[in-house]
Amino acid sequence: MAETKRICTFLLRLIAFGTTLSAAIIMASSRERTTVLTLSFEAKYSDAPAFKYFVIANAIVSIYGFLLLFLPSESLLWRLVVALDVVFTMLLTSSISAALAIAYVGKKGNPNAGWLPICDQVTKYCNQVKGALVVGFISVIIYMLLLLYSIHRVLNPLLVEKS
Amino acid sequence: MAETKRICTFLLRLIAFGTTLSAAIIMASSRERTTVLTLSFEAKYSDAPAFKYFVIANAIVSIYGFLLLFLPSESLLWRLVVALDVVFTMLLTSSISAALAIAYVGKKGNPNAGWLPICDQVTKYCNQVKGALVVGFISVIIYMLLLLYSIHRVLNPLLVEKS
Repeated sequence: MAETKRICTFLLRLIAFGTTLSAAIIMASSRERTTVLTLSFEAKYSDAPAFKYFVIANAIVSIYGFLLLFLPSESLLWRLVVALDVVFTMLLTSSISAALAIAYVGKKGNPNAGWLPICDQVTKYCNQVKGALVVGFISVIIYMLLLLYSIHRVLNPLLVEKS
Repeated sequence: MAETKRICTFLLRLIAFGTTLSAAIIMASSRERTTVLTLSFEAKYSDAPAFKYFVIANAIVSIYGFLLLFLPSESLLWRLVVALDVVFTMLLTSSISAALAIAYVGKKGNPNAGWLPICDQVTKYCNQVKGALVVGFISVIIYMLLLLYSIHRVLNPLLVEKS
């Protein structure tokens, strides 16, 4: 039973590593050259600070996730991992929220502020950003599950001892 | 010593409740009527979905924070609070990141997307949003501290038992 749980956690961490890495790569490779009237311009992820932040955050978390895959299961460092998971899950949550807010303005615009939607001009770019956000969202969900599972595992024995 | 820690935690939770409530109220009351050329318009928080999300998230977390103030310290529910803290801290982090991303575009604009900054027209509105974001940021820091402290408190005894 303990072995099954360990394999499950390892698989979840492997998927989490894969999704954060993919999200960073998909977002970083999103670019499209387009011509509006006579003006040619290129849309790329570094145009928006929020998208840059998304790439950096996902890259950092994927390095962290990669290192964790090699941490032996009997290591005492796993206790520290709960606290690190909190910090890195927050980083992911924050980066995806910021990117989502900007992507929403790109898609729908904001008539009150006079910001026009740009997705009609750069459809391919928008779809790639959308893909990156979906993959990023999956990684946030997985980290959230891992975190709640760690907390449950740590707290439950105490509850059993006490009652 | 345990008593001092309990008072500290209670004070932190009281401040966290105060800051989330203030952030929601400051953001929700941000509005300014201005006239550009012959066009009169009102800027208010509900113009941006990200700001609405910020108000709702802070309101929810302040209700949660308020209820916690009345939870007796010997209650077993405190074990559940660690998991709830994770969820609500994520909600706060996510809402402040989204609002910050939009506020940044409002302040600096985004020349690549053709979005103009609006803060020159509605300075008072922008300052109020900035105030709400600063107060919201303080509440995120406090919740993060409370969370890391809870994890430290739960994990440390185990480490002592084991070594």
